[in-house]
Amino acid sequence: MTQRSIRLFQMNATVGDFSKNLQKLERAADQARADGISILIAPELALTGYPPEDLLLRPALIQKLDVAETKLCEISEGLTLCIGLPTLAPKMLRDYDPGDLSFKPTSLNNSLVIYQCGRRLTEYHKNSLPNYQVFDERRYFVAGTEPKVCAIEGIRIGLLVCEDVWVPEIVEATCALGVDFIVVVNASPFAETKIAERYWHLRDRASKNHTPIAYVNMVGGQDELVFDGGSFVVDRRGEVVAQANFFAEEMLDVTWNGADLVGSRLVALPSKDWLLYEAIVTGVRDYFAKTGFKKAVVGLSGGIDSALTLVCAVDALGAENVHAVMMPYLYTAEISVTDATRQAEVLGCEFSILSIEPMVREFMGMLGPSFEGHPVDATEENIQSRCRGVLLMALSNKTNALVLTTGNKSEMAVGYATLYGDMAGGFAVLKDVWKTRVYDLARFVNRDREVIPERVISRPPSAELAPGQADSDSLPPYNRLDQMLSLYIESDQSPQAIIDSGFDSKEVKRICRLVDINEYKRRQSAVGPRVTARGFGRDRRYPIANRWSF
Amino acid sequence: MTQRSIRLFQMNATVGDFSKNLQKLERAADQARADGISILIAPELALTGYPPEDLLLRPALIQKLDVAETKLCEISEGLTLCIGLPTLAPKMLRDYDPGDLSFKPTSLNNSLVIYQCGRRLTEYHKNSLPNYQVFDERRYFVAGTEPKVCAIEGIRIGLLVCEDVWVPEIVEATCALGVDFIVVVNASPFAETKIAERYWHLRDRASKNHTPIAYVNMVGGQDELVFDGGSFVVDRRGEVVAQANFFAEEMLDVTWNGADLVGSRLVALPSKDWLLYEAIVTGVRDYFAKTGFKKAVVGLSGGIDSALTLVCAVDALGAENVHAVMMPYLYTAEISVTDATRQAEVLGCEFSILSIEPMVREFMGMLGPSFEGHPVDATEENIQSRCRGVLLMALSNKTNALVLTTGNKSEMAVGYATLYGDMAGGFAVLKDVWKTRVYDLARFVNRDREVIPERVISRPPSAELAPGQADSDSLPPYNRLDQMLSLYIESDQSPQAIIDSGFDSKEVKRICRLVDINEYKRRQSAVGPRVTARGFGRDRRYPIANRWSF
Repeated sequence: MTQRSIRLFQMNATVGDFSKNLQKLERAADQARADGISILIAPELALTGYPPEDLLLRPALIQKLDVAETKLCEISEGLTLCIGLPTLAPKMLRDYDPGDLSFKPTSLNNSLVIYQCGRRLTEYHKNSLPNYQVFDERRYFVAGTEPKVCAIEGIRIGLLVCEDVWVPEIVEATCALGVDFIVVVNASPFAETKIAERYWHLRDRASKNHTPIAYVNMVGGQDELVFDGGSFVVDRRGEVVAQANFFAEEMLDVTWNGADLVGSRLVALPSKDWLLYEAIVTGVRDYFAKTGFKKAVVGLSGGIDSALTLVCAVDALGAENVHAVMMPYLYTAEISVTDATRQAEVLGCEFSILSIEPMVREFMGMLGPSFEGHPVDATEENIQSRCRGVLLMALSNKTNALVLTTGNKSEMAVGYATLYGDMAGGFAVLKDVWKTRVYDLARFVNRDREVIPERVISRPPSAELAPGQADSDSLPPYNRLDQMLSLYIESDQSPQAIIDSGFDSKEVKRICRLVDINEYKRRQSAVGPRVTARGFGRDRRYPIANRWSF
Repeated sequence: MTQRSIRLFQMNATVGDFSKNLQKLERAADQARADGISILIAPELALTGYPPEDLLLRPALIQKLDVAETKLCEISEGLTLCIGLPTLAPKMLRDYDPGDLSFKPTSLNNSLVIYQCGRRLTEYHKNSLPNYQVFDERRYFVAGTEPKVCAIEGIRIGLLVCEDVWVPEIVEATCALGVDFIVVVNASPFAETKIAERYWHLRDRASKNHTPIAYVNMVGGQDELVFDGGSFVVDRRGEVVAQANFFAEEMLDVTWNGADLVGSRLVALPSKDWLLYEAIVTGVRDYFAKTGFKKAVVGLSGGIDSALTLVCAVDALGAENVHAVMMPYLYTAEISVTDATRQAEVLGCEFSILSIEPMVREFMGMLGPSFEGHPVDATEENIQSRCRGVLLMALSNKTNALVLTTGNKSEMAVGYATLYGDMAGGFAVLKDVWKTRVYDLARFVNRDREVIPERVISRPPSAELAPGQADSDSLPPYNRLDQMLSLYIESDQSPQAIIDSGFDSKEVKRICRLVDINEYKRRQSAVGPRVTARGFGRDRRYPIANRWSF
């Protein structure tokens, strides 16, 4: 009976960094050989990182793939390496002149390539190319049409890439070729509902086809995407027999025993809050690591959003790399300063207090004549917020630290944020986290130790941009607001459908209109980790000039 | 012999505004009936505007299409109406429950629908769905597969939508059904090279198939796209027999004489500079009209970019709606203030001078302790720029005027712009105009009258953020810079290929690196009219965290 050790490399690849990604693969292969592994599997587009976006349109891609090919063959000495990478479609290969530096890669496949003992054995081309949500795969790839089985030392392995395994017909066509087990390589981003979905599909596919499946996922953050890893293996009955951790670059080993895939490592599914929190921290950590930043600046207001943002930053980067800045004005409550100071102390990060009062005064003075005859409105509030933005950005520029913005998804949705003010910064930590979930996470991070002063969580939320201001003056309670927003934004429900499900007509219309007219703000907002099934950013492409009415 | 009058309605549709778009169509139909027109043709997706983006994913689309259907039938009384709109693919129609408000339009066609005398006669589904550059059509639509001929009172009309006519095989398949002439409806955005391309394709398709073609284009601005109109008709030999104006909503009439399409109205092709300038002005005008803004604020620096931006704004919105603001600091040359003042006078717009000196002083004072031990760098320059941003945004907020940003494409490319400073604003007028083209346009707008003081054009460019600063201190001359940038950005050339074509190796590498590392700024920049074949925005999707090396 043929027995084989198989290793899933749950890899954190960096987009565009061929050399670092190859190094990681090389180290993994060295270790695999030392451990007697026969088959090493790396994720979808592990060579280029995911998503490479328009880098795939650059003619230089072809030279880079050529160089990588030699290296990948070397890496596969003494074992079988299964790895996702873009390949030139046959049509392109025919036309390709290696001397022509301007040759454009207009016809690529998203492939799973098998290298064995120093040579390329075969390749499979992804059939189901997602072109929805955050995915633009049909912008870059042509779909493969043929199922593929790779025979390695008497084992028949069915090959699939990511979304292929979502489609029963594709899996069936592969199984129809006669396979011992299936390898599917993935770059499947995290969303709160995604993990259950993956289990459901894989268990269904495996059990219906009586075929074990090894599911290898990417891990790590890339701009607005966070890959959660959580690679796993199901046996021929669809039972999970091995499970990798979430949000960690690691290896998961299983064995082909001649009849089924078997494993011993299982981990308990973490809690919803743990997953969400780790997704965000991973997003922050990798955005810094992959853009080359070490240090962060966070404007601390005494409110819950900035408090949670600071905790995430400290977890992602270390307290020594985080500078918290309190920027009080006349409307800042004393307890805000007290609580912010206390939190910075507890977390052990650098803390400064810089008043915006003199700058706001000068702006108001200079603008006095222009403002004459106009009533006080949000303009004055925005000036406060923008003075804070200027301070944070100055500290960012001077100390080479990235500003983290602190707004949450509910605020981003209705535009309760100031462009170039509190929206100023490079990464929006809570951009895809509803305010109600911000409360959940604040309680979650406080579970062992009060890293967020309890009063920050319990006091009524306020932007403190006018005397006695409270969020509830102009917005419905967040639990109601978030429900309406989720229906409108994540489920595309019409205002009428939302009203029909039991919300107040006037309120629904007002909120939906706020979402619509604030697209211009979101378009200029920093990227931030997408953690729901519909984030802002690449995931939600709305026109700014848009007269869609209810 | 059957003779028929045909009218091309070069329409300026607004995205999402079904009711306004239907009103326009109704008025056009009324006029057409009065003028004895038999066939009225409106552009691709004229009902929804182009591109509707993710509005197409909303379940409410289906109800809106239902309502529009009744109206379109009415409008077509007494004539034939050919109009582009999304339709539910047959697969969807089968599943559709009209009572289900959450039913998602997951399977739409991008169709050309023919209404005749009060009823829907037939429809054609676009076959070639662009999913490159700014286009995401495969995100929304499934491709039609069948050519279609519509027989109207003894005339056989071949139906095509936009990119279909780019594909010889699709046109041939249509002609093979036996057609008298072809109607192709378009939403083809402007780019400097696009007009010649359209002529080339249409003349080729018509002459090779001995079939006349009526090409109806959208006109007007929509976020970053500008549709130039320029609808035209070629006869069976491929000769242009009728030509509409560019950048104007208008009608173009031709006649089917039983053997060919014939027309009498021809217009000379405008100059390159006229087209580019009109594209920009149209982009500005429609962004305001379609978002509901009337007034603009422009920061005037005494430099050529803001001077040209101001002229565009005045042409687009009227001098009475434009407020120019000069915001001098210690490093602002006397002649900058003089020239800015003079230009505002010549153009007749409101003009203010607001010094940033007191605010910069307060920021520097407050930041003094934090900056101790750090050398002076770009931080201090950015503070100046950001104080200007705060002033402009305050005027914007207070007077409900939109801030126009003034940066050009060369600056956007290399990141010579300050986030939340000179990049603060709602619409980036020159975002896709290389600096060398800014000079061309400045001379163009000065052709009859000196609306930009000559000295603004002739003096060496400087950001005036440090004493005696000049752009040439840190950048190559703009003619060389723009060539390198165009090769890198618009042609995707690798740095090595650019070096091989005769540029300095060190300079090329430095410039390309600047482009790469400044993606984060462009991601937060305002939208602006795309006028080249590769603009920033939806057209160029680059990762921010990106370690692609040369």
